[in-house]
Amino acid sequence: MTSMTVEAADLGRQGDLHTHFRKRFSEVRDLTERLAVPLAPEDQVVQSMPDASPAKWHRAHTSWFFETFLLVPYLAGYEVFHPRFGYLFNSYYEAVGARHPRPRRGLLTRPSCQDVADYRAHVDGAMTRLIEEIDEDQWREVAPLIELGLHHEQQHQELLLTDILHLFSCNPIDPAYAPYVAAPAAPAPLDWIGFEGGVYQIGHGGEGFAWDNEGPRHEHLLRPFRLASRPVTNGEWIEFIEDEGYGRAELWLSDGWAKVREEGWEAPLYWRRRDGGWGSMTLAGFRPIDMDAPVAHVSFYEADAFARWTGRRLPTEAEWEVAARGLPLDGNTLGRGYLRPVAAEGEGLRQMFGDVWEWTQSPYTAYPGYRAPAGAIGEYNGKFMCSQWVMRGGSCATPDGHLRATYRNFFYPWMRWQFSGLRLAEDVS
Amino acid sequence: MTSMTVEAADLGRQGDLHTHFRKRFSEVRDLTERLAVPLAPEDQVVQSMPDASPAKWHRAHTSWFFETFLLVPYLAGYEVFHPRFGYLFNSYYEAVGARHPRPRRGLLTRPSCQDVADYRAHVDGAMTRLIEEIDEDQWREVAPLIELGLHHEQQHQELLLTDILHLFSCNPIDPAYAPYVAAPAAPAPLDWIGFEGGVYQIGHGGEGFAWDNEGPRHEHLLRPFRLASRPVTNGEWIEFIEDEGYGRAELWLSDGWAKVREEGWEAPLYWRRRDGGWGSMTLAGFRPIDMDAPVAHVSFYEADAFARWTGRRLPTEAEWEVAARGLPLDGNTLGRGYLRPVAAEGEGLRQMFGDVWEWTQSPYTAYPGYRAPAGAIGEYNGKFMCSQWVMRGGSCATPDGHLRATYRNFFYPWMRWQFSGLRLAEDVS
Amino acid sequence: MTSMTVEAADLGRQGDLHTHFRKRFSEVRDLTERLAVPLAPEDQVVQSMPDASPAKWHRAHTSWFFETFLLVPYLAGYEVFHPRFGYLFNSYYEAVGARHPRPRRGLLTRPSCQDVADYRAHVDGAMTRLIEEIDEDQWREVAPLIELGLHHEQQHQELLLTDILHLFSCNPIDPAYAPYVAAPAAPAPLDWIGFEGGVYQIGHGGEGFAWDNEGPRHEHLLRPFRLASRPVTNGEWIEFIEDEGYGRAELWLSDGWAKVREEGWEAPLYWRRRDGGWGSMTLAGFRPIDMDAPVAHVSFYEADAFARWTGRRLPTEAEWEVAARGLPLDGNTLGRGYLRPVAAEGEGLRQMFGDVWEWTQSPYTAYPGYRAPAGAIGEYNGKFMCSQWVMRGGSCATPDGHLRATYRNFFYPWMRWQFSGLRLAEDVS
Amino acid sequence: MTSMTVEAADLGRQGDLHTHFRKRFSEVRDLTERLAVPLAPEDQVVQSMPDASPAKWHRAHTSWFFETFLLVPYLAGYEVFHPRFGYLFNSYYEAVGARHPRPRRGLLTRPSCQDVADYRAHVDGAMTRLIEEIDEDQWREVAPLIELGLHHEQQHQELLLTDILHLFSCNPIDPAYAPYVAAPAAPAPLDWIGFEGGVYQIGHGGEGFAWDNEGPRHEHLLRPFRLASRPVTNGEWIEFIEDEGYGRAELWLSDGWAKVREEGWEAPLYWRRRDGGWGSMTLAGFRPIDMDAPVAHVSFYEADAFARWTGRRLPTEAEWEVAARGLPLDGNTLGRGYLRPVAAEGEGLRQMFGDVWEWTQSPYTAYPGYRAPAGAIGEYNGKFMCSQWVMRGGSCATPDGHLRATYRNFFYPWMRWQFSGLRLAEDVS
Repeated sequence: MTSMTVEAADLGRQGDLHTHFRKRFSEVRDLTERLAVPLAPEDQVVQSMPDASPAKWHRAHTSWFFETFLLVPYLAGYEVFHPRFGYLFNSYYEAVGARHPRPRRGLLTRPSCQDVADYRAHVDGAMTRLIEEIDEDQWREVAPLIELGLHHEQQHQELLLTDILHLFSCNPIDPAYAPYVAAPAAPAPLDWIGFEGGVYQIGHGGEGFAWDNEGPRHEHLLRPFRLASRPVTNGEWIEFIEDEGYGRAELWLSDGWAKVREEGWEAPLYWRRRDGGWGSMTLAGFRPIDMDAPVAHVSFYEADAFARWTGRRLPTEAEWEVAARGLPLDGNTLGRGYLRPVAAEGEGLRQMFGDVWEWTQSPYTAYPGYRAPAGAIGEYNGKFMCSQWVMRGGSCATPDGHLRATYRNFFYPWMRWQFSGLRLAEDVS
Repeated sequence: MTSMTVEAADLGRQGDLHTHFRKRFSEVRDLTERLAVPLAPEDQVVQSMPDASPAKWHRAHTSWFFETFLLVPYLAGYEVFHPRFGYLFNSYYEAVGARHPRPRRGLLTRPSCQDVADYRAHVDGAMTRLIEEIDEDQWREVAPLIELGLHHEQQHQELLLTDILHLFSCNPIDPAYAPYVAAPAAPAPLDWIGFEGGVYQIGHGGEGFAWDNEGPRHEHLLRPFRLASRPVTNGEWIEFIEDEGYGRAELWLSDGWAKVREEGWEAPLYWRRRDGGWGSMTLAGFRPIDMDAPVAHVSFYEADAFARWTGRRLPTEAEWEVAARGLPLDGNTLGRGYLRPVAAEGEGLRQMFGDVWEWTQSPYTAYPGYRAPAGAIGEYNGKFMCSQWVMRGGSCATPDGHLRATYRNFFYPWMRWQFSGLRLAEDVS
Repeated sequence: MTSMTVEAADLGRQGDLHTHFRKRFSEVRDLTERLAVPLAPEDQVVQSMPDASPAKWHRAHTSWFFETFLLVPYLAGYEVFHPRFGYLFNSYYEAVGARHPRPRRGLLTRPSCQDVADYRAHVDGAMTRLIEEIDEDQWREVAPLIELGLHHEQQHQELLLTDILHLFSCNPIDPAYAPYVAAPAAPAPLDWIGFEGGVYQIGHGGEGFAWDNEGPRHEHLLRPFRLASRPVTNGEWIEFIEDEGYGRAELWLSDGWAKVREEGWEAPLYWRRRDGGWGSMTLAGFRPIDMDAPVAHVSFYEADAFARWTGRRLPTEAEWEVAARGLPLDGNTLGRGYLRPVAAEGEGLRQMFGDVWEWTQSPYTAYPGYRAPAGAIGEYNGKFMCSQWVMRGGSCATPDGHLRATYRNFFYPWMRWQFSGLRLAEDVS
Repeated sequence: MTSMTVEAADLGRQGDLHTHFRKRFSEVRDLTERLAVPLAPEDQVVQSMPDASPAKWHRAHTSWFFETFLLVPYLAGYEVFHPRFGYLFNSYYEAVGARHPRPRRGLLTRPSCQDVADYRAHVDGAMTRLIEEIDEDQWREVAPLIELGLHHEQQHQELLLTDILHLFSCNPIDPAYAPYVAAPAAPAPLDWIGFEGGVYQIGHGGEGFAWDNEGPRHEHLLRPFRLASRPVTNGEWIEFIEDEGYGRAELWLSDGWAKVREEGWEAPLYWRRRDGGWGSMTLAGFRPIDMDAPVAHVSFYEADAFARWTGRRLPTEAEWEVAARGLPLDGNTLGRGYLRPVAAEGEGLRQMFGDVWEWTQSPYTAYPGYRAPAGAIGEYNGKFMCSQWVMRGGSCATPDGHLRATYRNFFYPWMRWQFSGLRLAEDVS
């Protein structure tokens, strides 16, 4: 977990660090609560599918993380808020003991939303004490864990939004989480940006926080390639639909085609035909499709089939990372609940960050030399390195500090409830 | 639907009837709301299994019934509360149009509990107007439908309680719906009450409300039989468990044995071994088993196996009805949330009503000459006359006016979430 | 098991009885083998659905029955043919020990068909010795068991045919089990035959073999009714199809309607539209529908919906039995593989026996006073008295001696692979 | 499909080539039939799981391949053997039309084994004519297709054996396909063979037949690594079992752990505890485990968990290929039905070929620049490049000519019915 270590230099400025962490802790924790404000208690308790979790559960689980990995081991005299919460709010850490089954998270009508708010306050108070009072020797051990807990909570902030969107999409009366905000139309032409082949350094280099799966940094050999200047748009996706893209077996991976037939897919997840045109559930309720916005809520299978239809391909994650280095992290508008049209201004690659997660053609596996950390913390990333695919970039629901060139998100190839889209690549022959 | 007709004699006393209905309407409707008072919004939205419905859904669906079958056809100028509620809150009436799929009722976090309260108030206001203003000619048609709607709502009052118990049983922290009320221990001996054979009149005779499935009244030939003076108790059920009752194939129907193995049944639905003894989830939370109370939450399969283990049998529904005639309807304590011990005082049959529904050996079929009424109302009972079993008597969750000798309740033989128990019978050889 | 007892009078004529049994034993056993002649080894090993069994399995299981219940207990020095056959060929007798799971019967490519032929010869030889040598004291105990084994084997003869038809229906190249035999067209008009109400004796009376479930004989009260003079024909069923019978929810039981939607039923099991008309797989391969023949391969759900569509109903099993008494047992042409047109000649009820099993509206339950026999033999009928429906009469695949007025066949309401049809009834108002 | 092209040089020696192909064609086709000789017709028809196919189906499908891709397009006047065989024996080629569903292959009792033998003779005769008579212009197009068809048939030869083993493993009487052949015990010590890092050429280079997925040949950057001198043995696997390897979540990928729990895995697929020790079904029937033989019939999940338990890892497919170059292809004893002990003699890497397929840590994806060929032939490999893992080397059931360093076999990570084992690797730090 070296990449999660707080820098040695920082540790010298101990006092500043305490202040920094106190502030950052309360900012992250407060944002979670602000994201829950538009939700009634009823909205916070239901689990709309096994992959999703109730908003209330996200709020409690992130608190459990601090309680379990920080407060119990490091804060003298800390008393757990409730003896059963360890069972209820453990997500998947086998090392920490038995847990409530994931598909049954939506059965927990108690603790209530108010109980969870009390739990959060209890944990926040204790964490504030911990940050104040911890002795200097333990700081080196504790600080990275706090950092980890905050990044963990930020991941759940994104999930809270994507899970609410899924829940609301199941409701025939189309609830809205937030008001719609109009974005200026700005159709952008598609350019192709070329990159040289050669041996590149891939992975996180050490400065700042990164997940363990972003390292070790290592050399990787790339062939020359080109990357599309912008993501695929809804308008382009409609061309695929109208060209019978969902009905032509030859465009699809075998597993993908089986899924298309089995589930009856004929458009991205939240799209519905109404009144003669396509619309989609969004966090602002049901909206007509914006032709110029990036397509979202497509699976890897769909992204791959679309790419084959165009005669091009998805980029590898290494290609994407090489291309993304040094670009502005301009997405970052957590919870705005809509996708911007593709920006016309600017040259080169646009909207690599903060619009849609972009499927790559890379299965999610360990980088050479990777070893999962020991203990429960080691269960965070390593055990999922199987049958999932890497997405890069970050979506309109991704929080601050989770946008960077080396970040590896991963989902199963059939999953569609994230803000997942794609950008095309091609070989330079 | 003749048996649902308001008596001709009553129709003469028109004014009284209006007053009567106004009062009765508000009593039934108010009780539903009172039953929901102990429930947080979170408790009211979740569906813990496809057979159960959220409390909020029960509150809305019963209102939809009045809106659809009374207000829309009979109240001039009535405007439906919300255009999609007809879709959301239709339970199973094919004749009334498309509906939200039953297993997805728990995904409807909106309308909120408060919205549903507003819906109920809207319907109640309009119903009050309807009862006031309806002209005399239509009264004959409308009055039985109001009566039907009220009985329908009372059935959902019982389901609201049984469904909440199931929901709370899924929660590791054992929530309670109501405080526990101690009942005096009163072990009652088991007597056998004999009845003559012969041709009996079976079914509802015409006076007072009854469901269509309680008629037509008809002759039925019975052989002499004896009925146990009281239901089987928890203490007796523990003997069955300890005699390996759940492990001996020869005691079980083939379908029942398959279910036992598949589901791993080893006790009634809500029983758990804790701290060396048996306890059970109840509406008052997790409680130690009361040995003298009637066993509840057993399936027909279990009731049948238990009876075979004793060398006796379950009664037929006709035997039960003949025996129950003229007995006091003494159960009637809706929502008390616990089962009384079997009463020691008194002679003859005890606790036929209002403790547990008693499984009979009778599959639920039409009485000779039965025809389902035409239209949506006809879907109420007839189409379920297949593969279910009749239970008689009524439980501690059954409301006023649903306790009578001819009442036929029916459930699939594997179902256990009702307050379902049994009483033994035997042939007179 | 009194009804299975060989008559005391017969037991006096011991020598005759031995001769009788030897002859009857070889006749029944030989017929099974003759039925298998048209089947290649490949046809005998596959299990096309869990409800069906491979032909080879039927041949072995019926032999296992004699080995287990006769030879092992009664023939001194008998050695079982193979130590694992007890495990492989026990069908469902819990009392006899562990067994190969039913849905995996089709995985047993060994023992081969030839091995099974050897097994049958081994058992037949030993049974012949048993019938010769058994001492007089044991005869009283053994004779009814032999009788039982032979009736058991005859049931499997019918199943062998219905299971082969199902298997062949899964094959796109439409194999035929037997050549087609033309039957003269003979459209018969539909008459209604009336019966008086009153108390009737129902069930087997004692003379000749009967299954335990046909007794005890008991009194049953019937109301006046009328029965159709002949079964429903294919031509009438096509009218039902063309009147959208499979698309109108109001005609169906709730469970039946769910099945129709889930399975996409739109005609009887083996019907297919080809070249603009209806045809059906039969034991003689794929054949055009004969409009005048009784409809077959319909479920109880379909039979019930059809009856509702006509405004009539299915008979009860007691009505059917009362009507069938004394009629000629004229069906009896095991394995002819086709259904005769309904006979025009004659008056009164026609084709009650030996054309199609006729669904009744009666759930399969115990007659009053019924007790299953002790031991493994007691598992034959009693444990299935749950959620199945009674069919009466016997089909074109039913063997000699299984046609009688009191015979109760039973299947789940969704099953269609038997030659199952229906005859209408109506109340006399 | 360039890598499947018959060499230009060869095409000059036309006559030789005809002779060569005639001989090779009959050798491959004859071997298939010889492999079926120990199988009774009963053994050839059953499908024991959806992943496996009946032996008869393999024999017919491989003939269909020649009929469809060679005879119909290239042999003037060829008549297909049976009009429905195209439907029955297409495996998964979407471009060729509708096909019989894979899980229903075992329902085809007809055509019989003899019919399939006739089909094969018909196709062989026509193929012989085609090879004789084809004009020189078409030869360049046809020769690679014949080569492809023969390699395709060889793959099915291996599957025929693995599928029969699975089928026989489902039979409680443990049938044997072939007699057991003793192999001399020869425990081999475990050495570690080192390899340099650097840029290597990976993939097939052009000479001889290769599948399209073995190319394009391309550069790949490797870090220094070490490879075990021999596969993991059964004895080592028993240590893993005895150290609770199947019970420790921390050793497993998340998906793997879910599978272990769901399926109750506690040893390789065919292992059973009997009489106090481990044995396994093999093609020679049930045999005690040979401690010195390579472990087989483990999934990728198990291989990965085992490697983690040892503190080492699986090799990548590129590492394996680099190590395997130039080693003797010494396995090659198709159908011998048993695994040899690991050879003690020799130095360096042993038993890379022909003992067990060795799981790598590489998901099966396209090599850089890969494009699937157009048309039905293009469905052979490309559409499966998703969620499967690469195995290298070849097993004791792999035929001649399928052992080479660049060969990429692929299976889902949970699959265990192939002769799949593993060899460990480690980083050089």
